[in-house]
Formats: sequence, structure tokens, C-alpha cells
Amino acid sequence: MRAKVNLAEKFSLFDELWSPKVIAQMNHVQFKLVKIQGEFTWHSHEDTDEVFMVISGDMVIEFRDKTVELSAGEMFVIPKGVEHKPYAETQCQVMIIEPEGVVNTGDAGGALTAENDVWI
Amino acid sequence: MRAKVNLAEKFSLFDELWSPKVIAQMNHVQFKLVKIQGEFTWHSHEDTDEVFMVISGDMVIEFRDKTVELSAGEMFVIPKGVEHKPYAETQCQVMIIEPEGVVNTGDAGGALTAENDVWI
Repeated sequence: MRAKVNLAEKFSLFDELWSPKVIAQMNHVQFKLVKIQGEFTWHSHEDTDEVFMVISGDMVIEFRDKTVELSAGEMFVIPKGVEHKPYAETQCQVMIIEPEGVVNTGDAGGALTAENDVWI
Repeated sequence: MRAKVNLAEKFSLFDELWSPKVIAQMNHVQFKLVKIQGEFTWHSHEDTDEVFMVISGDMVIEFRDKTVELSAGEMFVIPKGVEHKPYAETQCQVMIIEPEGVVNTGDAGGALTAENDVWI
């Protein structure tokens, strides 16, 4: 049995942006913390839904046909296969929940692709 | 695509204790809110891990060999098959994350068994 996880403590362990860190796993689902600021890449995940839960700050998820604004205490489920682009004007702390193996840039790849399955 | 979910708003919609309400689903994983106070039943879930994430207040998860105290901003993964008993001295707001179909009292049943798959 792993130890309990304190989100603020885990966020204090890294500064990189757009680089999700795994903090827990339930069955094959991973819980990842990420700090974001600025614009990410348009991408989608063909095989899975993805959850964004904002822990502190504000962010925007752009879709091709709408924009969703999220603040601390709010969450959103991005359906599989749907193109999206996360954005945050100032730094925002987010928990991402998705199956293990999911790469942050999905089908798009590129410079913002982070190493996967990095635990802290 | 479902609307975004505001946790505080969803918590304001119900008062019952020990009665998880589904607020979101990612693939076959459900996100449930529950208000707890007092002692729950010893039970386990034979087929799945289960995540407790404390949103406000404090709670305790008793295991046969140890006790884990959780406060707001902390989470814990209960491994499948492991007996546990949640407890909260004063009301505590919790998010439970687990596959759809999981019953709150697991293998134990009894009076605290809540209706499953109730969305708010």
C-alpha cells in the first residue's frame, strides 16, 4: 500500500511546465500533476477520455467549436478523439486523470511532448 | 460533451451522508462526491482499487493494521481486496474515484448500502 499523497507537497517538488508527474495509480488509471502556463499544442487522444481538474489558478480548454474556462475546484472530461488545446494566462496547477500510457501531446507529438510515466 | 463540473456547486445539491453521487465519468471510471460523518462499515472491493480524495474537512481510513488520516488536498489509493473502514468525526467532503458499478459497502452490504450510479 502506497503512502497518502498531499497535492501541495507534490506540486512543490517540480517547476517544469507542461510536464505531467504521476502521483498515484488506481488500477490502470494514473493521477498526474502538471503546471501549465501559455499555450499548448492542438491534439487529441484517440483511445481515451481525459480529465482535467484545476487545483489552483485558472485555465482554458479550447475546442474547435467552443472554449471552456476552468478555475480551482472545477473539472472537465475531454471525450476521446476530440481535439483540444489547453491554455493558461498565468501559472495554473492541474491534476490530469487518464489511463497509464497516455502521452501529453496525444496524436500531435512535437517539442512539448513530455517523458511519460514519471513518478514523483 | 458534458458541461464542466464545479465541485462546490455539486456538493450543495445534497445533504445525505454516505451516499455517493456521480458527477463525471472518464471511460468506465466514475467520479463521485460523498459527504461522510461518523463510522462506516468494514468492507473491501474484491475487483478494484478505490481512490479517496478529501475536498474539505478531515477523515480517517482504518485498515486492519494501520490508520491513515486525510485532510483537504490529500488522497489515498485503497488497493483492491483490502479491508477498510472510513470514519469522520465532523462532516467531511470526499471525492471517490473508482470504476462504474462499484457499490459503496463492497462485500459487506448492510444498512449503509447506497443506491449506485446516481448522477447529480
